[in-house]
Amino acid sequence: MSFNTYGHIFRVTTWGESHGPALGATVDGCPPGIPVSAGDIQHWLDRRKPGTSRYTTQRREPDEVEILSGVFEGASTGHPIQLMIRNTDQRSKDYSEIAAKFRPGHADLTYWLKYGIRDYRGGGRSSARETAARVAAGGIARAALAQLVPGLTITGCMVQMGPHPVNRANWDWAEIERNPFWTPDAAAAAHWADYLDELRKSGNSVGAVVEVVASGVPAGLGAPVYAKLDTDLAAAMMSINAVKGVEIGDGFATAALTGEENADEIVMGNDGPRFLSNHAGGILGGISSGQDVVVRFAVKPTSSILKPRRTIAISGEETDIVTKGRHDPCVGIRAVPVGEAMMAAVLLDHLLLHRAHVGENRGRIG
Amino acid sequence: MSFNTYGHIFRVTTWGESHGPALGATVDGCPPGIPVSAGDIQHWLDRRKPGTSRYTTQRREPDEVEILSGVFEGASTGHPIQLMIRNTDQRSKDYSEIAAKFRPGHADLTYWLKYGIRDYRGGGRSSARETAARVAAGGIARAALAQLVPGLTITGCMVQMGPHPVNRANWDWAEIERNPFWTPDAAAAAHWADYLDELRKSGNSVGAVVEVVASGVPAGLGAPVYAKLDTDLAAAMMSINAVKGVEIGDGFATAALTGEENADEIVMGNDGPRFLSNHAGGILGGISSGQDVVVRFAVKPTSSILKPRRTIAISGEETDIVTKGRHDPCVGIRAVPVGEAMMAAVLLDHLLLHRAHVGENRGRIG
Amino acid sequence: MSFNTYGHIFRVTTWGESHGPALGATVDGCPPGIPVSAGDIQHWLDRRKPGTSRYTTQRREPDEVEILSGVFEGASTGHPIQLMIRNTDQRSKDYSEIAAKFRPGHADLTYWLKYGIRDYRGGGRSSARETAARVAAGGIARAALAQLVPGLTITGCMVQMGPHPVNRANWDWAEIERNPFWTPDAAAAAHWADYLDELRKSGNSVGAVVEVVASGVPAGLGAPVYAKLDTDLAAAMMSINAVKGVEIGDGFATAALTGEENADEIVMGNDGPRFLSNHAGGILGGISSGQDVVVRFAVKPTSSILKPRRTIAISGEETDIVTKGRHDPCVGIRAVPVGEAMMAAVLLDHLLLHRAHVGENRGRIG
Amino acid sequence: MSFNTYGHIFRVTTWGESHGPALGATVDGCPPGIPVSAGDIQHWLDRRKPGTSRYTTQRREPDEVEILSGVFEGASTGHPIQLMIRNTDQRSKDYSEIAAKFRPGHADLTYWLKYGIRDYRGGGRSSARETAARVAAGGIARAALAQLVPGLTITGCMVQMGPHPVNRANWDWAEIERNPFWTPDAAAAAHWADYLDELRKSGNSVGAVVEVVASGVPAGLGAPVYAKLDTDLAAAMMSINAVKGVEIGDGFATAALTGEENADEIVMGNDGPRFLSNHAGGILGGISSGQDVVVRFAVKPTSSILKPRRTIAISGEETDIVTKGRHDPCVGIRAVPVGEAMMAAVLLDHLLLHRAHVGENRGRIG
Repeated sequence: MSFNTYGHIFRVTTWGESHGPALGATVDGCPPGIPVSAGDIQHWLDRRKPGTSRYTTQRREPDEVEILSGVFEGASTGHPIQLMIRNTDQRSKDYSEIAAKFRPGHADLTYWLKYGIRDYRGGGRSSARETAARVAAGGIARAALAQLVPGLTITGCMVQMGPHPVNRANWDWAEIERNPFWTPDAAAAAHWADYLDELRKSGNSVGAVVEVVASGVPAGLGAPVYAKLDTDLAAAMMSINAVKGVEIGDGFATAALTGEENADEIVMGNDGPRFLSNHAGGILGGISSGQDVVVRFAVKPTSSILKPRRTIAISGEETDIVTKGRHDPCVGIRAVPVGEAMMAAVLLDHLLLHRAHVGENRGRIG
Repeated sequence: MSFNTYGHIFRVTTWGESHGPALGATVDGCPPGIPVSAGDIQHWLDRRKPGTSRYTTQRREPDEVEILSGVFEGASTGHPIQLMIRNTDQRSKDYSEIAAKFRPGHADLTYWLKYGIRDYRGGGRSSARETAARVAAGGIARAALAQLVPGLTITGCMVQMGPHPVNRANWDWAEIERNPFWTPDAAAAAHWADYLDELRKSGNSVGAVVEVVASGVPAGLGAPVYAKLDTDLAAAMMSINAVKGVEIGDGFATAALTGEENADEIVMGNDGPRFLSNHAGGILGGISSGQDVVVRFAVKPTSSILKPRRTIAISGEETDIVTKGRHDPCVGIRAVPVGEAMMAAVLLDHLLLHRAHVGENRGRIG
Repeated sequence: MSFNTYGHIFRVTTWGESHGPALGATVDGCPPGIPVSAGDIQHWLDRRKPGTSRYTTQRREPDEVEILSGVFEGASTGHPIQLMIRNTDQRSKDYSEIAAKFRPGHADLTYWLKYGIRDYRGGGRSSARETAARVAAGGIARAALAQLVPGLTITGCMVQMGPHPVNRANWDWAEIERNPFWTPDAAAAAHWADYLDELRKSGNSVGAVVEVVASGVPAGLGAPVYAKLDTDLAAAMMSINAVKGVEIGDGFATAALTGEENADEIVMGNDGPRFLSNHAGGILGGISSGQDVVVRFAVKPTSSILKPRRTIAISGEETDIVTKGRHDPCVGIRAVPVGEAMMAAVLLDHLLLHRAHVGENRGRIG
Repeated sequence: MSFNTYGHIFRVTTWGESHGPALGATVDGCPPGIPVSAGDIQHWLDRRKPGTSRYTTQRREPDEVEILSGVFEGASTGHPIQLMIRNTDQRSKDYSEIAAKFRPGHADLTYWLKYGIRDYRGGGRSSARETAARVAAGGIARAALAQLVPGLTITGCMVQMGPHPVNRANWDWAEIERNPFWTPDAAAAAHWADYLDELRKSGNSVGAVVEVVASGVPAGLGAPVYAKLDTDLAAAMMSINAVKGVEIGDGFATAALTGEENADEIVMGNDGPRFLSNHAGGILGGISSGQDVVVRFAVKPTSSILKPRRTIAISGEETDIVTKGRHDPCVGIRAVPVGEAMMAAVLLDHLLLHRAHVGENRGRIG
């Protein structure tokens, strides 16, 4: 990763601010010959789009992606794919308060201290709108994975809102498309709806936990010691706005387990090794084992709230601030497609890195 | 990060296997003129050294570091510093079982599937011995930080062993040097000693949570959007053997908070902004705020245990395995100095990256 | 460098094809607070623009740059600057011949063999139009250098056209703005005009040598052993379309010199070391010495000519090809501003790298 | 490339100084399963070894390589390979003059100005001894190429000493092993022997041009726009000590050609496209065409000479210097195996990069 780029071979550089003319992603290293269309990418963008339910920001952005390069007659050429999304709903408003004061929990203060200049309109570069570019790039990664690893699926969902986790006994993947929270637990969805309505009306917000699962991942992806698959997934998820924690498989819960409990025992399945459990989240020694790759990340509550909070002004004066405007009461909801996109980018990247380094899965068993 | 290298400017490449002739770290990008001595690095290595209490592996390695390059007349020259540690206690033993079978929870199976070749002696490259090279490199980072940011401190500690967390009311930093667990809670230390003795005797192991705190970190370190300070810390910690989760500040706990609760309110202190709380762990928008930088990571229980576990052999046959040998019942203990070393490397790297990009802290308040 | 990116800290990724909707540069790592305007960048682009004399392609592209991100209220913010240039003169034409046959000297065959897909319209990604994006990015680099190193100048010129070199006795920097060849030798310009007219009319083309000189470069830029200043300049220039050779200072001529002749003797000047000659081209041991940095590169003759040449078709059939269309008879002319742009980018990048690694010039003399 | 590392996938970091305890190369990204032995690497090192004829430095270094990691039972494991060469002939001598004065043509002055600290013993990091580490790493690259691309050969030779080029009519590859100059022209070898003897006796030195040719390179290696094969070759060669120019194929001579002359016409051969000439040096649009890849580089005369030259002392005083000691009268001779090693590393790296990005050669003809 460098400033605004992630990936080793499949390299994505996002650019753009919340209230500039456009934002987008420069995607380099996509293999040639992958079917790519604006329509396919749009499909993924629409899942992240604001304003689709009363639980997400009411900013109305069509978030229409344009492909400016790297695609010829419907397929990737191997050259950089430039994806641009115009900003259209830059509501003209008075930014004088936000320009003068630092909103707690936001990047306002640190951007100012670091750079001495700050595009304060809508948070500028620190706006969650940046994640639209990630989702667009993730669409490219998904298209490449679909061709290179048929059967691989990536699905994200919310598993906790505020203090309320899902009940894993209720888990039904089909459910995630039926509720505005992308949760596999219908009962949780019903409960969360009421809970979030109340928070929203009171001008407050709440955190969440998102889980992303990749199935059909071939064994052998990941590169010890520092480009481990889990290392790169941790970085990818932690880089998403508002994320404060990442875990793989049982994650923090493994701290409480004994070695005996935590061992994923191995038997022979029909087509290779089979594990009797998946505490490891599909990654051993930084390399995929063939099991489901499972990542979870914690999203802090949206910092923009209607509750007055103490802060300081750029003048040094102490003051209060209330962040008006159109905000997500639980930004974790829209983080679900972003987490999926990051998973797709990381898996594709490691697939390419693996073919560079090893060429093909080499070890045979039996 | 690439395969075995981390860092943007201050770049550390570790190399070596558990039972090869040596292991070490190639450290590039250290500023010139930093006082560096083998003795100083040895100080940090000795903290990680095995065999210092009955709670760590009884492997006896002096872990003596040699500086082969990059230091002249006691100071860094700006050229690569090669740090080498000879392996001396490669006890001659029978590796036939470990060569033929895959130990659950280890990298045995995935290394084999990926590479088709595996240095199985002591886990080869996946051995926790690799972390000695990290600690040595961290010693260089600490020396550079000491010169460039006087007053910056980095301290790690254990805050949970198995299901038993510390009581933060007992927190005393001075305590960490007084018990074999690097824990600031003397009561926890006493309790853990009995708990771990019992586990060790039964041939079992247990997980842990480690916390690393950096104080005196200047505001402005970190580079949005993908080289955020928290992104790089997440990657650095997740890359450590056996780590399954990383969190910044309140981490996963923020998911359960409201925006009102989670906001770190700001007032004016004597020498700049002061926060009334530190839920954010010292990082806002990926950039340090001047508060303590707080990272926690979960270490899974050691996979090498005396309890028999089901597994398969390279032949495809199903079998059982018991991992004899000298192992850590709680590998989290020795992860403490490793976490400190990674924190030091990341902070130095971001300090250098910041002076490249910005030159100096620019924003003024008041 | 990776696929489409160059630079360590100041990183430029160009994107786009000759006949797609747009091309551009994603510029990351520009320091914050640098005055940047589309007008300033346009100034440099206009120097490279086609159709300014009868000696360059008659393609009429306004090459107007739009800044899509990273600039706020006239200054860089430290975030990615997206520079976009719309393609407007994609003359609708019949591409069937060029699609079916491989033009000798072009990337047609190798792109096809490598990728199995090829945007053949105007050469696609291999078109010299890509260099417009470099020049735009170079405009950013120049703006940053102007602020960080006042007095530094970068000037390119043509020193040879076909077999006709300039006479260095005629050298007059002011001359380069007065002739269409950017040459400091007015006599050469007169001679070349006739020579090139004849070649152009016969449908032929010719090569050239370009020299770029940077004055006022501070001593200390460059990073041994592989990120030497000359290493990065060699890569930067060789990456320009049609370049087949690069040399620093006396370059290939030094092969014929003795050590006695080649030594640049040193005396004390008014403000530090002064050299009695500059065979080295301002770089010693990969690091700038404070003298003028001098780079030359050879540009092969344009491969698109009206002379029929033998080639093969994608069908495998042997055939002839004549490349009609609007082409530069001496593409070296328009390479002058491109070489300047690459010099600017490399110098800025090394300035930032130096401040990361060392902080400031450290050695004192006297 | 970063400070001391080159390569995208196959990454080589060299370390060490002329008079420190050791130097070496940390080689990361070598594919697993490649047969690697110290003996094979030694074979290549012995070609570069000083003291093999009266035309190279009389420093007596056995240059014995030790493999410290990454090789198990005779094959690469996919993990970092640490190659160490002990310095044994650090003749104890008086360094006071070289410590106090800056030798013209050396890195003495620029290292001092940049870093403010300088390991002056034998040039420290700027010593040509660093190239031993390159040759060792090149041995690994050659072993991997031998397995991945059977039939690929890499051969370097000297084609010019001082003002005396070879006569290409005399070219005989077999000749290069029969003379101390690695030249394919026996007549030139005879002439150069006398020429160099005279220079050596007078305490002078001379430059040279080295050519490296790779045959059997598959079409398709190289990655536009900035990781072109020629770009990376230019960087690789320019990074070698004393190199001042690099060219591909006809290089600077193409400047004098017309497009008609320079076109490498294409016909159909028995197994694919065949070119009627190779002005391009096997690279089109930055990608290998299947023809011989031809690179030449100019090596300046050794700066260490017995002729007194004017210089300054660190005190600022003007003075003279004569560089006594054991030096190469024509350092270009020993640059031949170094150029071969760099070619091997770059080709392997691009082979791996190609399999990452594309997977296999894709375009079909006929």
